[in-house]
Amino acid sequence: MGKLIIVGHKNPDTDSIVSAIVAQEYFSKVLRQEAQAYRAGNLNNETKFVLQSLDMAAPELIASVSADDSLVLVDHNETTQIFEQLDLAQVEYIVDHHKLALRTDKPINCRVEPIGSTSSLLAKMFQEKGVDISEKIAKLLLAGILSDTLNMTSPTTTDEDRTLVMKLNTIAKVDIEEFVGRMFKAKSSLEGVSVSEIISLDYKVFNMGNRKVGIGTWETTCPESVNKKEEIQEALREKKEVEKLDLIFFMVVDILKQNSELYIIGELEQLVAEKVFGGKAKDGLLLLPGVVSRKKQIVPQLTAELTK
Amino acid sequence: MGKLIIVGHKNPDTDSIVSAIVAQEYFSKVLRQEAQAYRAGNLNNETKFVLQSLDMAAPELIASVSADDSLVLVDHNETTQIFEQLDLAQVEYIVDHHKLALRTDKPINCRVEPIGSTSSLLAKMFQEKGVDISEKIAKLLLAGILSDTLNMTSPTTTDEDRTLVMKLNTIAKVDIEEFVGRMFKAKSSLEGVSVSEIISLDYKVFNMGNRKVGIGTWETTCPESVNKKEEIQEALREKKEVEKLDLIFFMVVDILKQNSELYIIGELEQLVAEKVFGGKAKDGLLLLPGVVSRKKQIVPQLTAELTK
Repeated sequence: MGKLIIVGHKNPDTDSIVSAIVAQEYFSKVLRQEAQAYRAGNLNNETKFVLQSLDMAAPELIASVSADDSLVLVDHNETTQIFEQLDLAQVEYIVDHHKLALRTDKPINCRVEPIGSTSSLLAKMFQEKGVDISEKIAKLLLAGILSDTLNMTSPTTTDEDRTLVMKLNTIAKVDIEEFVGRMFKAKSSLEGVSVSEIISLDYKVFNMGNRKVGIGTWETTCPESVNKKEEIQEALREKKEVEKLDLIFFMVVDILKQNSELYIIGELEQLVAEKVFGGKAKDGLLLLPGVVSRKKQIVPQLTAELTK
Repeated sequence: MGKLIIVGHKNPDTDSIVSAIVAQEYFSKVLRQEAQAYRAGNLNNETKFVLQSLDMAAPELIASVSADDSLVLVDHNETTQIFEQLDLAQVEYIVDHHKLALRTDKPINCRVEPIGSTSSLLAKMFQEKGVDISEKIAKLLLAGILSDTLNMTSPTTTDEDRTLVMKLNTIAKVDIEEFVGRMFKAKSSLEGVSVSEIISLDYKVFNMGNRKVGIGTWETTCPESVNKKEEIQEALREKKEVEKLDLIFFMVVDILKQNSELYIIGELEQLVAEKVFGGKAKDGLLLLPGVVSRKKQIVPQLTAELTK
């Protein structure tokens, strides 16, 4: 029997990376199975900050997987978000908090809950087994929850997430506001980030009806810093063509003001977005007041429209 | 907020019915949510025996569901097996041990494990919450596990199932061999069962590639009693036409000898079955030595062939 190969989605965010690291601990220590965490892409500046603050190395980039290894997908289950070289027939576990999208040929382990982060779910799984969490794991899980829920302000946040943050912080003992401030500053940092990376760092492709829809997000405390509008539009047009997408969107999320600006680059995008979200696009931008969550406030609404 | 409406698959088997009843206990007592179990079809003779032996009434047949209720699917997640009148958008929970088949528009709760029965999984969920199980619930769960694993002889049986049976029986205190004997005798009973019921009582439809495939099973300690071969073949032909299936199969499982006879009614069925399972059909029957599990020994193999 081979190893468990644990990996998050392409264009990984903090929750996806820390979930993989924590799942390695869960499977190896709790379930006593040989397990190794990997990443499916480059780290964003927020995740780099989190790992640096814990003096931890990033998981290695996933490469080939032997035929007798099993795959553990954390924080995703949509084929378009799974690292391309992986064989879906080797998926044995899913730990996720997104909509169900994967069909399998045989029964596998699937644990999905509509909770704020995959980190929250992993924290629950440790609790259920009655296993103590180390300070390092608690900090990783906290970072995952606080990042994915935008410090518990996103509509994806549940009461369970809030309780878990409190419980985890009795172990992690961090100044949450200060930690989140530094995390979001790192997330917002454009240091070493090109325009094509801005639109690609937190980017996912969804199958909606017969359409292939790419949606990138950039969460920032300072939306004014994302000021290369024409370059971004050009990069989106190119990405749409290269990836043969039917639609592409890019949302700049203002974490502090809790709204988003949606980049609209084509007629179809404009038609669909204005119908679904209301309002009127201006100069290729549609303001979405109160919208911060792709998962809860963008994807279900677009999916409903495009599968009509 | 509405109720949780709990329901198993169409053509319910024992695991599907007891899972719904036990899930009602779990959601109402453990998670403190208003919950009600229903059934999605007529009970088979085994399930009738189990409920009678516990002096319990069968759940009501599911009818309409109000728009503010949420659905809990137990023991299934394939659209073809979900009661037709239900709105898939209302599904909020899945507790199952079958392959992943359902896509959703939003994140929901999904707990699926490759374990012998949905009853096993529910027993684990009670354990995880540290909640005691009553004698009645323990007996229901035991019946579900023992039925679905054919008294722990099916290849779907895991070590966890065996451990759970031992633990549950410290509460249920039944003579397992005697109980299973009576359960399988009831399962094998053709009392009040017409030919069309023989093929339909434990019958599921699967989407395999672009094909719609119906597969019925009849588990019996006495395969000779299923002796109306021509009538069964005729009923299968009719069902295939009425349900607009691409293929239909019916397997008579000999629980004691641990093999199956597969009914083959058409050219396509014969071609596919002989290729996938080996052997040569004779007089419309293909003997499958060692095959007892539709889920593990029939469906994945057919799916692999038909999605090539």
